[in-house]
Amino acid sequence: METRNIFENISCIDHRYSKSESAVFDGLTKYISEEASIRSCAKAEAALVKAHLKIRGQLTQDISDKLDVIAASVDPEAVYKEEEKTKHNIRALVNVMKTMVPADLGPLVHLGATSVDILDTALSCRMRDVTKKVVLPELKALEKALCAIADREAETPQVGRTHGQHAVPITFGWSIAEFVSRLGKSILRIEELSDQLKGKLAGPVGSYNGPSMIVKDPEELERIYLEFLGLKPSEYSNQLVEPEYLLRLLLEMNVAFGIIANLADDLRNLQRSEIGEVFEYFASTQVGSSTMPQKRNPWNSEHVKSLWKAMCPRVITFYMDQISEHQRDLTNSASQRFIADYVAGFTMAVSRMKSVVSGLQADHESMAKNLASAGGKVKGGVLAEPAYILLGEAGVNDGHEVIRKITLEAEQTGKTFFEVLKTHTDAYQKITAQLEKLGVENPATFFEDPARYHGLAAVKSRRLAKKYAELMEKNN
Amino acid sequence: METRNIFENISCIDHRYSKSESAVFDGLTKYISEEASIRSCAKAEAALVKAHLKIRGQLTQDISDKLDVIAASVDPEAVYKEEEKTKHNIRALVNVMKTMVPADLGPLVHLGATSVDILDTALSCRMRDVTKKVVLPELKALEKALCAIADREAETPQVGRTHGQHAVPITFGWSIAEFVSRLGKSILRIEELSDQLKGKLAGPVGSYNGPSMIVKDPEELERIYLEFLGLKPSEYSNQLVEPEYLLRLLLEMNVAFGIIANLADDLRNLQRSEIGEVFEYFASTQVGSSTMPQKRNPWNSEHVKSLWKAMCPRVITFYMDQISEHQRDLTNSASQRFIADYVAGFTMAVSRMKSVVSGLQADHESMAKNLASAGGKVKGGVLAEPAYILLGEAGVNDGHEVIRKITLEAEQTGKTFFEVLKTHTDAYQKITAQLEKLGVENPATFFEDPARYHGLAAVKSRRLAKKYAELMEKNN
Amino acid sequence: METRNIFENISCIDHRYSKSESAVFDGLTKYISEEASIRSCAKAEAALVKAHLKIRGQLTQDISDKLDVIAASVDPEAVYKEEEKTKHNIRALVNVMKTMVPADLGPLVHLGATSVDILDTALSCRMRDVTKKVVLPELKALEKALCAIADREAETPQVGRTHGQHAVPITFGWSIAEFVSRLGKSILRIEELSDQLKGKLAGPVGSYNGPSMIVKDPEELERIYLEFLGLKPSEYSNQLVEPEYLLRLLLEMNVAFGIIANLADDLRNLQRSEIGEVFEYFASTQVGSSTMPQKRNPWNSEHVKSLWKAMCPRVITFYMDQISEHQRDLTNSASQRFIADYVAGFTMAVSRMKSVVSGLQADHESMAKNLASAGGKVKGGVLAEPAYILLGEAGVNDGHEVIRKITLEAEQTGKTFFEVLKTHTDAYQKITAQLEKLGVENPATFFEDPARYHGLAAVKSRRLAKKYAELMEKNN
Amino acid sequence: METRNIFENISCIDHRYSKSESAVFDGLTKYISEEASIRSCAKAEAALVKAHLKIRGQLTQDISDKLDVIAASVDPEAVYKEEEKTKHNIRALVNVMKTMVPADLGPLVHLGATSVDILDTALSCRMRDVTKKVVLPELKALEKALCAIADREAETPQVGRTHGQHAVPITFGWSIAEFVSRLGKSILRIEELSDQLKGKLAGPVGSYNGPSMIVKDPEELERIYLEFLGLKPSEYSNQLVEPEYLLRLLLEMNVAFGIIANLADDLRNLQRSEIGEVFEYFASTQVGSSTMPQKRNPWNSEHVKSLWKAMCPRVITFYMDQISEHQRDLTNSASQRFIADYVAGFTMAVSRMKSVVSGLQADHESMAKNLASAGGKVKGGVLAEPAYILLGEAGVNDGHEVIRKITLEAEQTGKTFFEVLKTHTDAYQKITAQLEKLGVENPATFFEDPARYHGLAAVKSRRLAKKYAELMEKNN
Repeated sequence: METRNIFENISCIDHRYSKSESAVFDGLTKYISEEASIRSCAKAEAALVKAHLKIRGQLTQDISDKLDVIAASVDPEAVYKEEEKTKHNIRALVNVMKTMVPADLGPLVHLGATSVDILDTALSCRMRDVTKKVVLPELKALEKALCAIADREAETPQVGRTHGQHAVPITFGWSIAEFVSRLGKSILRIEELSDQLKGKLAGPVGSYNGPSMIVKDPEELERIYLEFLGLKPSEYSNQLVEPEYLLRLLLEMNVAFGIIANLADDLRNLQRSEIGEVFEYFASTQVGSSTMPQKRNPWNSEHVKSLWKAMCPRVITFYMDQISEHQRDLTNSASQRFIADYVAGFTMAVSRMKSVVSGLQADHESMAKNLASAGGKVKGGVLAEPAYILLGEAGVNDGHEVIRKITLEAEQTGKTFFEVLKTHTDAYQKITAQLEKLGVENPATFFEDPARYHGLAAVKSRRLAKKYAELMEKNN
Repeated sequence: METRNIFENISCIDHRYSKSESAVFDGLTKYISEEASIRSCAKAEAALVKAHLKIRGQLTQDISDKLDVIAASVDPEAVYKEEEKTKHNIRALVNVMKTMVPADLGPLVHLGATSVDILDTALSCRMRDVTKKVVLPELKALEKALCAIADREAETPQVGRTHGQHAVPITFGWSIAEFVSRLGKSILRIEELSDQLKGKLAGPVGSYNGPSMIVKDPEELERIYLEFLGLKPSEYSNQLVEPEYLLRLLLEMNVAFGIIANLADDLRNLQRSEIGEVFEYFASTQVGSSTMPQKRNPWNSEHVKSLWKAMCPRVITFYMDQISEHQRDLTNSASQRFIADYVAGFTMAVSRMKSVVSGLQADHESMAKNLASAGGKVKGGVLAEPAYILLGEAGVNDGHEVIRKITLEAEQTGKTFFEVLKTHTDAYQKITAQLEKLGVENPATFFEDPARYHGLAAVKSRRLAKKYAELMEKNN
Repeated sequence: METRNIFENISCIDHRYSKSESAVFDGLTKYISEEASIRSCAKAEAALVKAHLKIRGQLTQDISDKLDVIAASVDPEAVYKEEEKTKHNIRALVNVMKTMVPADLGPLVHLGATSVDILDTALSCRMRDVTKKVVLPELKALEKALCAIADREAETPQVGRTHGQHAVPITFGWSIAEFVSRLGKSILRIEELSDQLKGKLAGPVGSYNGPSMIVKDPEELERIYLEFLGLKPSEYSNQLVEPEYLLRLLLEMNVAFGIIANLADDLRNLQRSEIGEVFEYFASTQVGSSTMPQKRNPWNSEHVKSLWKAMCPRVITFYMDQISEHQRDLTNSASQRFIADYVAGFTMAVSRMKSVVSGLQADHESMAKNLASAGGKVKGGVLAEPAYILLGEAGVNDGHEVIRKITLEAEQTGKTFFEVLKTHTDAYQKITAQLEKLGVENPATFFEDPARYHGLAAVKSRRLAKKYAELMEKNN
Repeated sequence: METRNIFENISCIDHRYSKSESAVFDGLTKYISEEASIRSCAKAEAALVKAHLKIRGQLTQDISDKLDVIAASVDPEAVYKEEEKTKHNIRALVNVMKTMVPADLGPLVHLGATSVDILDTALSCRMRDVTKKVVLPELKALEKALCAIADREAETPQVGRTHGQHAVPITFGWSIAEFVSRLGKSILRIEELSDQLKGKLAGPVGSYNGPSMIVKDPEELERIYLEFLGLKPSEYSNQLVEPEYLLRLLLEMNVAFGIIANLADDLRNLQRSEIGEVFEYFASTQVGSSTMPQKRNPWNSEHVKSLWKAMCPRVITFYMDQISEHQRDLTNSASQRFIADYVAGFTMAVSRMKSVVSGLQADHESMAKNLASAGGKVKGGVLAEPAYILLGEAGVNDGHEVIRKITLEAEQTGKTFFEVLKTHTDAYQKITAQLEKLGVENPATFFEDPARYHGLAAVKSRRLAKKYAELMEKNN
């Protein structure tokens, strides 16, 4: 077994992050390491032998089990050694497997297949499995953590921001519900797409030339082969499975990645010294800065954003790999191997964000303070907007002007907006009446607390949290 | 009306290609020019007025028609002039529209809306419409032209190629059926996604603060507003509609673009001097080269590939625009304006490919010649593969070795592979028997013509051509 | 003359931004519109005629002037009309020019040239000229505006931030000097690269086959031709000039763009409601928000960032265009036309940033307030760092622990850090002695004002401002 | 020592390619593995101690050597273990080094530095070293192999191709000289840029706050520190070295990568079955295809192209990393770690291309055959172009028409172009006279062999080969 000091690896996925995200790394390596790749091919070869046997009516449970055991125990090192001779990786695997199966099954190994019938099929299996077993569980755990916050903080007042400027009140749950909704849909789509990956058994140019020499209905042979692996055939194949099945899955992972990067940026900014509304969990032994001990940096959110920057542009490679000349050229071979890196980078970012969100501390006091300062020099001035709307609704044509004067008066006297508003009895009565129409019993409960002016923020936060928390439990 | 000599424009979309693809340009400009953008916003403002009237039970057909006429006749120049004052494009539009509607409807214009309630909704309308009215018709016409070739050339023998090397026989129809299948699915998905674009009427931070002051059920107001425009609400909005609805449509357009670029590359290569299997239509007055008159360049296919190179990387911008800090920052505003360029570049490539495919000339003679030379020094040697498979099927263990010797003999004697094969009676009988099992009556019909060895190429080409030709007719 | 309502254009460069950045647009259109492109080709054709005449000893100033006038007055419309016949743009131009030159010069038009000898040469001319005449002046004006701030605000105290967290004091000039230094170098490099663009006159495959039939030394003919245009020959040409000369210029523009985008992000964040250290110029008639009149959005900085998002990924296209099969394929033709869009997008961003920086308002009060709050609960605590360093320098081994206790005491007693420090006479004396070694006469002037702790911020800000302000004046 | 079965690694760089490119991998791991990164930081810390000692006049050769030994033997595992406590990688390294140095030097370790003073400086060292010691030697070996072919095949006739169509004759050396010239310049630029990487010792926000407390001239301290590492200071630093020094190096590597990808595409296409002008070296034991033994695939060229597809888009990440908010945010941290992957992918592609080029077999016979067929139906018709040019030069106005008729006659009679040309004595005499002017003694030597019509192809191929072969020897 060829081993290496992990610190001599070149990709940070295989050294630094394999340690800092060791649980995720172990999950990933089970499905998309080189060992896993070779064994997924072995599994496909085993399925092909079973398919031949089944068509001939010779498949028994015992043989089937034996083939499974063989496939799972193929030694990557032996295959690599054989490849030194053949200079062809699948031919090497076939040679190795022929020595492992009962002698009479030898001729059935790889019978009727071209290399890519195995390779592309195995790739679909690996990508489906790593998605379902590693990527989706991490994503769903993150989504559930988001749902929990959106629900728990559904009523926590926070100032809404546009252009980085204070706008109107929302709740902290509402700002998190955004990611519940966006990420939730992406997760469901990833799940759907992972179920649509396809395999093939159609020969070197996809037209079943070879298989047609073996069986009357080569499409039936393909179906049986793929059924053993839980796949369906690509609607068309040349040498390759149509690339778009996998492409769409990768593009959607990148959609989810963009959403998570957006969340990372939001959390980074909410942790600014001047804002201070949330904090990442901070261990008591942790060093903030080598020279500035007071600092508490949002480094996990920064890490997630940084991984997005490293991975997002790689979709261009995925798109480039759509193009394969004629019945195929090999220029997608090396590039496709880096899909594993992408999936690893993405999953590690999801996992990190999961722990950020799980340990996230919301500073309600800071949120309240920032909201309170949102009106600038007019205390409570953030409620000028609804006052002017209500006045307009009441049929007052120059409502905007009326309210503007009230805010000026408030600024000059140092009183709150509401204190001044009450003294303008005509306007205030109209506003009161309008509020009552909307079901607000006591107008003071509305105007004394800007935080109440948040529309459906709380209601919709809870609704979305509930919906997606339930959806995440499905299919599990 | 501010006009400009088109040759003074900077983007080739607005000068050179607006002429060479004038029909497409005219289609696009109707939906995604600046004039179209402004009017789509006006239409959204009109829908909002209607929604208010409907909720109040005051909407008549007459008013509705009037509003439609007004929206369709807003003068972009007037809006721009107003914007010089307001420095705010939607406020400018609102001011202009207020002067156009009956006085009593003035206060209802923009009531309860924030700018993006109009902008994002209008963008969804435009993107849906340009997709359905311009992009999809071009795509479907291309797809139908591909179906026609796949069907017509289903039996035309061609050599299959992998790594640019002759592999085994296929048919020309089969090589085109690839694009029927891949592009067909992408078209259907584009159609689906264009139906899923969303709008919003949820205020500056999405939580319906303002609308809640106006109506009891602001989500109902949003639904009614959007119904007038044929849209549904974004499941969640902050200031923006969730960006992923539109993102997925653009990503899928780029998927289709990759498929078309692959087709362009295939056609470019089939037109190489040494291959010469297909030709683009060539007008009799056309100049191939200023100095080399014999040349007949695949310049339309090159053009399509070139447009793909120009447009494909722009998906990174689309992904970047997922990130908008907190309830929104404005850093997606300018970048989003270039979506129009992307759609134009894509559609122009589709249209060009449509004309390439429609005028495509297949040189059956060259195809036959290239297939004939596929065995290299062994005439008919391309049938060594099925011979060895059939022998294996017949239980001969060293079939590969038997056949290898036959090919050597053929090479040395200058005879065809089949001539020599027949003299090896034992092997030949076994092969014959096996062929009969597969339903091939007369083995000679198989071995005398390599072109017959193409598995399901013809059958599946026709099947796919039929399926997608029918699907393209749906929803039209 | 074919004109179009500009609002019917599709690219925002040709409608919205051609108005909002009209001066820049006019500059650009002079060099890189379609009209400019055609005329730059005409200029190259004229240079070729001159070169032939010069070699024959027949070139007079009069003929030379005549040819210049003809080149400058070629009518794009006429060329396009001719192209409808030839289907070849350069052949069309040649035909038109032949009708314009004196009859005896007709045979010399395009003599010995292949289309790309003209096209690539003209592209280099255009790119050099637009860079020198439009792009660089905008960049230098921006750089000078940055120098002015770096110098003017060299001493203005500001809190330095890392990870968005308060770190240690700097000056506002220092934070701007970053961009002086980074952008300055990029500008100089852009200038250098614009001087290195190359031309060619080497025939369809670059080996001077045709020219060798005309003159004994075809490289001399090439040199003379290019000298008329101020260019040197590409060291090697196939059909194309080596693509890397232009590629490097575009890559460096994108380097400058990244620096400007970084500046835009910094300014955006400094304008956050909670930070408020700088403001974009805001016209008195401007509307901040349609519903929230208190808002003052950093929309110009957002605009610049957004343009960067739209343009940055296009470098992938530039890299893709390096690949041209064999002596050239045409797949760089359409993609290359979009270089004009890139240059326009970049220059418009530079211009916008220039006006942001020129009108930038620094709020010294907010800066002071934020710096004052930088120590968190320990007033003046931002000076704990230098105290601990000075103590270490004085040979105290547990200096960090000594200072930590002082900060605790300050926090508990509500005194400032300096007030408490003074009471620890032993430590304070050592610190005082150390400060004196560094040339600080009175320690109190250091410890009473955190703003003094800014190292070389002021000195280096001024030094860089001076250096680059001077460099920007060179070559002008 | 934590080891891992290499097949359990996720990145193909660390499993498959670490074996297939083991020499390159070993070179890379020496400079850019995690172990190498940690030790490069240790080396920077050692340089800092030396700088402090030197300023104090206490640096001896003995101490200097001791520090070097310590830096080179830091155990990554120990640092990682310490980091579990500190959660800060540089603080962990510092703690470990403090236990390794003589007790009295302990306080000098990291004195006056912030983490990035070490990290960014060490990164520049690593990148300079890996470039000079691994990347450039591979590149230069490739370049020299190209020079050898350009020189050796300077006269080998080949048909030039544009648009994939036969154009006019060149030589095979000429088609390779393209890459000599383009790659040569890029190599020289990479070398230059690797010498321009910078370091820093300027504290957490770059303004030397901390260092100013330690020494009178902190810039002197920085210079001495960096001199020990062979670097110069960044002209400006905030927390980070200006990112553009490294960015430009990476961009130029990608420029070289594009050139190599172009070469790969050219070689792929020259190996097509129908063209067959070159072949990759093919081991006798190698399997071309599992089912089609006649095939000889250009898989190494395909591999290089595929690596380019995987790596090229990553420049977007490099550009994104230019943006770091204010005095720095950490969002470049993870992304920057993947630079090692990029350098590995690039170098492995260079190395593979080096072996392709070194073993490249040119099939002169096929080249001659393809050139002979270049005139299409007119034998020798490829010389119609020079005939028409010469006639034009001789003052014949309708030369093009004269020659066109001759080609028609040749086609109809089946004679060669030259056979017919000779019978048109008037035209032929004029052509002959013109050829003599050009120094061609016997016109028949020109017209009987199209291969002679290649202008300066041979001369310039040799010139470029000589120039760059010599340049590659410099600085070595």
